[in-house]
Amino acid sequence: MSLAALETPCLLLDPTRLQRNLERMSERARSLGVHLRPHLKTAKSCDVARRATADEFGGITVSTLHEAEYFLAGGFVDLLYAVGIVADKLPRAARLVRAGARLTLILDSVEAAREVAAFAATHAVAFAVLIEIDTGEGRSGLLPDAADLVEIGWTLDRPPYCRLDGVMTHAGHSYAARDLATVARIAETERSGAVRAAERLRAAGFRAPVVSIGSTPTALHAAQLEGVTELRAGVYMFGDLFQAQIGSCAVEDLAVSVLATVTGHRRDAGHLLIDAGGLALSKDRSTADAPHDCGFGLLAREDGTPFAHELKVVRVYQEHGLVRAADGDLPFDDLPVGARVRVLPNHVCMTAAMYDRYHLVEGAAIVGEWTRTNGW
Amino acid sequence: MSLAALETPCLLLDPTRLQRNLERMSERARSLGVHLRPHLKTAKSCDVARRATADEFGGITVSTLHEAEYFLAGGFVDLLYAVGIVADKLPRAARLVRAGARLTLILDSVEAAREVAAFAATHAVAFAVLIEIDTGEGRSGLLPDAADLVEIGWTLDRPPYCRLDGVMTHAGHSYAARDLATVARIAETERSGAVRAAERLRAAGFRAPVVSIGSTPTALHAAQLEGVTELRAGVYMFGDLFQAQIGSCAVEDLAVSVLATVTGHRRDAGHLLIDAGGLALSKDRSTADAPHDCGFGLLAREDGTPFAHELKVVRVYQEHGLVRAADGDLPFDDLPVGARVRVLPNHVCMTAAMYDRYHLVEGAAIVGEWTRTNGW
Repeated sequence: MSLAALETPCLLLDPTRLQRNLERMSERARSLGVHLRPHLKTAKSCDVARRATADEFGGITVSTLHEAEYFLAGGFVDLLYAVGIVADKLPRAARLVRAGARLTLILDSVEAAREVAAFAATHAVAFAVLIEIDTGEGRSGLLPDAADLVEIGWTLDRPPYCRLDGVMTHAGHSYAARDLATVARIAETERSGAVRAAERLRAAGFRAPVVSIGSTPTALHAAQLEGVTELRAGVYMFGDLFQAQIGSCAVEDLAVSVLATVTGHRRDAGHLLIDAGGLALSKDRSTADAPHDCGFGLLAREDGTPFAHELKVVRVYQEHGLVRAADGDLPFDDLPVGARVRVLPNHVCMTAAMYDRYHLVEGAAIVGEWTRTNGW
Repeated sequence: MSLAALETPCLLLDPTRLQRNLERMSERARSLGVHLRPHLKTAKSCDVARRATADEFGGITVSTLHEAEYFLAGGFVDLLYAVGIVADKLPRAARLVRAGARLTLILDSVEAAREVAAFAATHAVAFAVLIEIDTGEGRSGLLPDAADLVEIGWTLDRPPYCRLDGVMTHAGHSYAARDLATVARIAETERSGAVRAAERLRAAGFRAPVVSIGSTPTALHAAQLEGVTELRAGVYMFGDLFQAQIGSCAVEDLAVSVLATVTGHRRDAGHLLIDAGGLALSKDRSTADAPHDCGFGLLAREDGTPFAHELKVVRVYQEHGLVRAADGDLPFDDLPVGARVRVLPNHVCMTAAMYDRYHLVEGAAIVGEWTRTNGW
């Protein structure tokens, strides 16, 4: 089947590039001596998850309980739900455990620890728990030296139900780094902060065997991960323009793109229109602060090869994308109304979230289809 | 059922506010002497569409052929697909007509007109077509005085198959206006440009009975619509913070919000976290250029009442929203971990698109559920 048979906009996935990206991160984890627990918040697909865990221990990370349910139904049992748990979500989490999941929760307060421990004991359900540590991102988590850390341990650890397994952190601020030396420094702070927090717990008498860290940039550029047991990362599977800008991948590694159709020419105004707008591409503007602003995405030819000059989606409406040439004239004659193009995404986690499937593409041929899930 | 029974994040819809917003626009259309053809790209719901068309002639506007299929299955027959048609989408459009739709397409080039006319005649399928006019938005369409206008008519009009019905335009640049006098001026340019284009077609011998215009701001603030036959608008049904900023509605009219849960406190950093992030709220930042920047959304209490001080989602991650007080301290004690809040959206078309249903809410009670569709 050829690309021409697809309705646009739709999502394309190059399985060869995916496989190369997966192997690269697996090799990184092996060389660093840590387990890889892939984060499936980007791919949200059992087909991708099977490949991402093929040479790993099998554990995965998820960003919603809906993902946890989807992946459990797909045969994934060891699930880390990497957003702070709250009481209202515990009944749903317990249903996962009763359905066979080995579920790890995270939290960062004594109050949450009390709720989880009480719920687990009352309902005789086994949760593993990691304490979330803030190693510089400044979002959620306890600072490594926070007084509450050990108190959370005492509140939480009630085997066989609620069991403190250790700590986790996410150096998401590595996304703001603009050179690899800075990423490596952030990776070291991520590592050392998480290890220090785990050692404080061990000094207080807890086993705390797990030290889980990770973001795609720090996973790729950490010098060493002594004391860390597992790595979580997700966007490395597909890559995107932002990750290419900050040195996590090359543009040639990008495995996902949006297939779109040219729907109009405005030669008078120097732009053309495609049928991929704010919903098809997302309104993510993460490259706005990157060295090179990629607008709402860059165009490639239908077969994935680049254009001679940069063509950029400079504006989006709900179902229209407005394309200009970064310099010089738009090649209108090369892109007649009805022509197909690919749009490389700024931030693939956001772009992919509007689609329910991946069309697997090799050059201009469609070689399969994988489903994905969305929502909560 | 109470709000506490819902999993978060999820989408709430206040049917009383919706009804008030619908009646307001219906009354506007009546007083302007034009038909109202509601745009369902925002609501994407048959339940909403039935109410929006209750006192109207029954025609609706859609932004994708997927919406057209969904609404036709729901009993809506008169469908205007308001994005420029391309050849690849014609077989799907023809299936809609064969399934009973009275489908109106739009286009803005001689090439597209040739393709549509040839397809319609070859496959003996009846399409109504409007020529898209650019009355100042600068996105798609022909300028009202463009030489191609009449040529498109000659190329297109091949009854009983392809039939030129007139013109349509969309003054989307009214969103950039910052005072109502400017909106009214844009509305007059929208009206006069569309009417002028229709008159040029009529002078050339075409009947061109339809002059279709509309955006929520121009629909609300046009002084008169002489020569216009129908009005398209969509976001007025729900309203959002951006529309409130530009005078299309009051914050008290907003009918849709996202129910979220407080997942963490960072008293040390002066922020709290909710489980509604970039996917749950969208990354739309349309209020960034508005008089008042609403971040990624403003918080209201669980029952919909406002907080005494403004609480703003200042940053989003995929599944985390980071909330700060606009001035002064965050009321941490008033919003413990586990508390529920509502987030009023910046741009409801984008926010609603990640959800498959509306939970109907009256105060703190859930009184029903309506489904919606997404994707292409």
